[in-house]
Amino acid sequence: MKLYSYFRSSTAYRVRIALALKGIECDIVPVNLVAGDQRADQYRALNPSQAVPTLVDGDFVLTQSLAILAYLDEIAPEPPLLHGDAQQKCYQRQIALAISTDIHPLTNLHVLQHVDTLSPDVRGDWYAHFARRGMLAVEKLLQQNKRAGQFVCGDQLSVADLCLVPQMYNMRRFNYDLSDYPLCRAIERNCLRLDAFQQAAPEMQADAPHDLSPIHGPHAPCLNDVVK
Amino acid sequence: MKLYSYFRSSTAYRVRIALALKGIECDIVPVNLVAGDQRADQYRALNPSQAVPTLVDGDFVLTQSLAILAYLDEIAPEPPLLHGDAQQKCYQRQIALAISTDIHPLTNLHVLQHVDTLSPDVRGDWYAHFARRGMLAVEKLLQQNKRAGQFVCGDQLSVADLCLVPQMYNMRRFNYDLSDYPLCRAIERNCLRLDAFQQAAPEMQADAPHDLSPIHGPHAPCLNDVVK
Repeated sequence: MKLYSYFRSSTAYRVRIALALKGIECDIVPVNLVAGDQRADQYRALNPSQAVPTLVDGDFVLTQSLAILAYLDEIAPEPPLLHGDAQQKCYQRQIALAISTDIHPLTNLHVLQHVDTLSPDVRGDWYAHFARRGMLAVEKLLQQNKRAGQFVCGDQLSVADLCLVPQMYNMRRFNYDLSDYPLCRAIERNCLRLDAFQQAAPEMQADAPHDLSPIHGPHAPCLNDVVK
Repeated sequence: MKLYSYFRSSTAYRVRIALALKGIECDIVPVNLVAGDQRADQYRALNPSQAVPTLVDGDFVLTQSLAILAYLDEIAPEPPLLHGDAQQKCYQRQIALAISTDIHPLTNLHVLQHVDTLSPDVRGDWYAHFARRGMLAVEKLLQQNKRAGQFVCGDQLSVADLCLVPQMYNMRRFNYDLSDYPLCRAIERNCLRLDAFQQAAPEMQADAPHDLSPIHGPHAPCLNDVVK
């Protein structure tokens, strides 16, 4: 199995966590999104959306991180990425989707680059506007549903945690103020204690610069500063 | 069961199709997105993302259209919205996600309104840029995977068709040129022959203007013009 990944991509990060959790052996093939590798003909033949991640399992090629997570859950059911009854599972899906449809697509690199063409110097405001709009909704959903334990839904990981942690990483990378999201930060901290999340972290990837500082995780000063 | 919906919302349209397919009785409560009903305190308490759809089933409140589709599939399994083996199911999810993460969030009303504040008169170009980027990828995935029959995956409907048809509606509404998406158009035409898709169409909703012309579907001149 091969995963086309970029160390900083939050969608590839979701899949790397799942691979580590489930103990699935997989070759990681780097795609440098900043250098434009995703626009090369050979890669576009695999992934017409010109994005990571892409999973190749034999002759089956699959794109879209949430579809890949569902596939990994089908072929390697333990530990499951959805748990509990129908309502609990759909709650876990809801949080995953609130991040992956309402936040991530609007703050993606190719979108920020397109925003730059419309108006100079608004990229930061654009990012802050949509990150805040989306994350306030996620924090509110977590608070009012009262389903959180150590993780988004009780004390068992789900697809929601696999989306939340990379989103938090992305915001920390842009020095985004996280003070309005205490429950998200607490869940992030609990996740980052686990080996699978640590192995999947951007700074642990072969395509990351060798001197990349961790910006969340147990050794990241930023995280320890913010989360009491 | 109650569904908070807006006649033109493509995400609410996805859920209306599923309700009709599965024969689930559900009260439709209109939320006028243009008038700003989604920002009212009472609605935000249900849906902090300030969007439709929201499903209320007893005391369970669920947002995010793909999570709602999964919930309906759990409580009313027939006809299923995913079918076949693990690869087929994940292919269906992939197409649904290529539409609902790579296209819809970027062409959503609140995003277009935010684009207006950056630069006047670019809304049309913005829409066209992201609709084209996303739909070319969807058409390519459909063409190269060779899984389409009458519908996205063989001759059985799936969640992918429920995302594709509302996306096509949205593009027709903006008079977007669909000539580069022949397979998408053929699948749309096949879906629109079915009662469930016709019942769920925007012009059939109680909150639609009484004189709203159908812009796709069997009676829409536009669809018949374009699809041979």
